[in-house]
Amino acid sequence: MLLSKTGEFGLIKKLKKQCSGNMKDVSVGIGDDAAAVRIKKDTAIVTSDMLIEGVHFDLAFTTFFQLGYKFLAVNLSDIFAMGGKPEYFLVSLGIPGHFKTSYIEELYEGLMKLSKKHAISIVGGDTCRSKSGLVLSGTLIGTAGKIIKRSGAKAGDGIYVTGTLGDSAMGLQLLKKRNRKMNKFSFTSPSSMLTKKHLMPEPKPLKNTSGVTSMLDISDGLLIDLNHICEESNVGAVIYKDKIPVSRELAETAKKAGLDPLRFSLKGGEDYELLFTAPPNYKTAAYKIGEITKKDRLIIDKNGRETRFKAEGYEHFKR
Amino acid sequence: MLLSKTGEFGLIKKLKKQCSGNMKDVSVGIGDDAAAVRIKKDTAIVTSDMLIEGVHFDLAFTTFFQLGYKFLAVNLSDIFAMGGKPEYFLVSLGIPGHFKTSYIEELYEGLMKLSKKHAISIVGGDTCRSKSGLVLSGTLIGTAGKIIKRSGAKAGDGIYVTGTLGDSAMGLQLLKKRNRKMNKFSFTSPSSMLTKKHLMPEPKPLKNTSGVTSMLDISDGLLIDLNHICEESNVGAVIYKDKIPVSRELAETAKKAGLDPLRFSLKGGEDYELLFTAPPNYKTAAYKIGEITKKDRLIIDKNGRETRFKAEGYEHFKR
Repeated sequence: MLLSKTGEFGLIKKLKKQCSGNMKDVSVGIGDDAAAVRIKKDTAIVTSDMLIEGVHFDLAFTTFFQLGYKFLAVNLSDIFAMGGKPEYFLVSLGIPGHFKTSYIEELYEGLMKLSKKHAISIVGGDTCRSKSGLVLSGTLIGTAGKIIKRSGAKAGDGIYVTGTLGDSAMGLQLLKKRNRKMNKFSFTSPSSMLTKKHLMPEPKPLKNTSGVTSMLDISDGLLIDLNHICEESNVGAVIYKDKIPVSRELAETAKKAGLDPLRFSLKGGEDYELLFTAPPNYKTAAYKIGEITKKDRLIIDKNGRETRFKAEGYEHFKR
Repeated sequence: MLLSKTGEFGLIKKLKKQCSGNMKDVSVGIGDDAAAVRIKKDTAIVTSDMLIEGVHFDLAFTTFFQLGYKFLAVNLSDIFAMGGKPEYFLVSLGIPGHFKTSYIEELYEGLMKLSKKHAISIVGGDTCRSKSGLVLSGTLIGTAGKIIKRSGAKAGDGIYVTGTLGDSAMGLQLLKKRNRKMNKFSFTSPSSMLTKKHLMPEPKPLKNTSGVTSMLDISDGLLIDLNHICEESNVGAVIYKDKIPVSRELAETAKKAGLDPLRFSLKGGEDYELLFTAPPNYKTAAYKIGEITKKDRLIIDKNGRETRFKAEGYEHFKR
């Protein structure tokens, strides 16, 4: 059925049904002017993320299910990056008028899949027509005991990342290559680990945050995001090329293509792994990739050669 | 300066400075992964609203200042419609790459103007490039003592509105007519009350909500919004044509054009006045326009003629 037949209020009714789930602390959910939710701590953590067709995603590369999943994932990652626990999600959609209602239902299926893993309630949002592409804008509300900012890193701290870097950026390359000739909406996704990391990232919280001095999620690329910590904490950083975790899949794919995998690991965005700093003797399963310094920002290779680094990665508007 | 020169992070820095203001209960504001804010009651009221260029606004009719003002106003109206007090606002923007940085600064000036009136803190959001038009998506968080839903109306309750209806819809007609030949971005707004109501709506809270049984804000039109109350409360409604408040400006403008002003008052959207129900003897400065019934939905004219009404007004996707 076309959205023009379902209508805005018909769609809202359908989505309300689809979003039934964990509503224990929700006194008003989808369908009123605003939602009313219980906040169990006196501080709420709130993040908003927007995904725009043609900028953040291409409907030739992703299914609606995957897109819904990723849409919540990118918001979730920001809550985890503050040391928070996610609770409530609001979904605003700008939808092209020619869409089928089932596209949006499929998007919500992906969204619900990830929300159930983390017991997140979908409590509201906005649904309207878009004259151009699909626009997703989400707000995720959570709570936190200890809030971890970008600004607490100290000289001498170790620098850690929670997983391999560059997989998502290489996954995107693969998708672009494979799908160049495919039709919009006829897309079935390839299932390699690299493309999966791009299409359905899986943010995870840091289990033990005591002692952690600063944290953020790697969304724009390691160098640009590490630079945010340096700027906000007024420190420098040294990272070691051979300590940066690179997956076997990325290493092999880059080798075949004659490319340096580190190009993807250092500057590729959307890994949604956590980057954090903590005292050097900190016990963690995460990878230690360097140390916070007083001022210098350096990359050191296995032969000890030093290179200054700049904030290179993804930045909107910059060409 | 063009946004392509300022860059995403340069813009965020500028906006962060512009948004300094009431930050008493904000422990983390703009510039981290998420905001951290104090919630003084155990229930938070949350609403999201999206404005899309070409659907909700036309840059030939509005200045960026007015647009920023209205963007917060439409969110504010939803918080007031729940009986809430607004506290924190998150702003997500999808911005065409060719925009000047000053356009966004002007938009934030309008936003700040209204936020200061209500002591709302701007605490975060997202800023990204849009491939097509300008997209604004906001989330406003508030608190409430007593939450007023759409679902509490009872047969016998009076139906009330807080101000004149139809002004905004007529204002839009005037803008469309006057500006047909004007260039984008060269627009200076006409200052009549009707166009002002459309461009810079001024939502106000209901001062005394004790006894109020249901409430919403009139955004899509009186009939369609009253119908929401009927559906959610499982009741009917009778309204009297000659009780509906029509401004002198609307009456005069409609007369000149040979149109029925009630067409605008009944079906025109975006008035952002409150529509509420309360016991018939309820003391209020608001206009009483009818009564809640068990089932029938009727409009009665001054001669006593009854007409059934349908949910007519603005609905996205419907043609």
